Amino acid sequence: MTDTRAPDSSRRSERSRRAIYDASLALVGEVGYARTTIEAIAARAGVGKQTIYRWWPSKAAVLLEAFLDVAAQAADGEAEIPDTGDLEADLKLVLRATVDEMNSPVYDAPARALTAEGVVSPELGAQFVEKLLEPQLQLYVRRLRAAQEAGEVRAGIDPRIALELFTGPLAHRWLLRTLPLTHEYADAIVEYALHGIAARR
Amino acid sequence: MTDTRAPDSSRRSERSRRAIYDASLALVGEVGYARTTIEAIAARAGVGKQTIYRWWPSKAAVLLEAFLDVAAQAADGEAEIPDTGDLEADLKLVLRATVDEMNSPVYDAPARALTAEGVVSPELGAQFVEKLLEPQLQLYVRRLRAAQEAGEVRAGIDPRIALELFTGPLAHRWLLRTLPLTHEYADAIVEYALHGIAARR
Repeated sequence: MTDTRAPDSSRRSERSRRAIYDASLALVGEVGYARTTIEAIAARAGVGKQTIYRWWPSKAAVLLEAFLDVAAQAADGEAEIPDTGDLEADLKLVLRATVDEMNSPVYDAPARALTAEGVVSPELGAQFVEKLLEPQLQLYVRRLRAAQEAGEVRAGIDPRIALELFTGPLAHRWLLRTLPLTHEYADAIVEYALHGIAARR
Repeated sequence: MTDTRAPDSSRRSERSRRAIYDASLALVGEVGYARTTIEAIAARAGVGKQTIYRWWPSKAAVLLEAFLDVAAQAADGEAEIPDTGDLEADLKLVLRATVDEMNSPVYDAPARALTAEGVVSPELGAQFVEKLLEPQLQLYVRRLRAAQEAGEVRAGIDPRIALELFTGPLAHRWLLRTLPLTHEYADAIVEYALHGIAARR
């Protein structure tokens, strides 16, 4: 957002914005999406609710931005999946980091609340996918395409489908809590998806 | 459930039970898990709510049984994944059927509502996994193990992990509505997971 105000005002705005992100993620994790209100976010963040209404059109918009902010901080400026020339090593690194994120309480509760709401609300789900999920999936598309150009991935493979062999199992285990999410599991998924589970003839 | 009553009473019970299943699935799809009540299920099924309280300890229990019933009917007596000796063909058949089920409105709304609730409620999620999901996943374990014994799947593969390469991507696309769920997609997932996406050296 362009801010043409004086530096002091701009710093205050940045502090408020961060307080609003923190408050909205904490609240949605504690009481769920439906019971999170703009009023409660404002009270917890210590700002007037007009401040929130001025910056965001809806509760969903605040939450999506808060998640985008978390994702940007987690990525720590690294927008792309690393490319060391070793696809297996690069994917294991990324999937292990994803496992750590899913296992972190700070991420788990708000991410579950937002995902669950997207599962039953097509409109929120579509925003969630467009703004948050699909841009992350496109990082895999680019890395797999580079690997394809380097001859590491078979020519006939569609990267937009192939990436789901990595992200699908992790999300399934995380969301449905079937079995523990570990680094060993992440490594196995990468190995199975890259080399296949069928015997070679 | 053992029924020692007279045939007429037993037929009436069976009719009521089915009406209760239908009502609970319809309701949860329409208003969500939180707003589905035993009272509303009873009213819609045309039974007294005491009937429901007599047969089930909770709303979650009714819904889980209703889903088990749908799953049993969909399986049509076929409890196992077919084993024609051709793993690829058998998995494509099953995954295409899963895609059809996920795309069916009768299944979609109640299954989304129950899954979303399991995502945010650990207790319901655990029941959902134990009674409904894990028994279905074990069908894959058995089929993959048979394929391993037949030499179709590599010896080092853990079937309980490998199955997630098939079920994870489909559930991800269904729950998050990223892209259309088609038979072509199901086929691609089976081919990629069996043969790997990496180039062979």
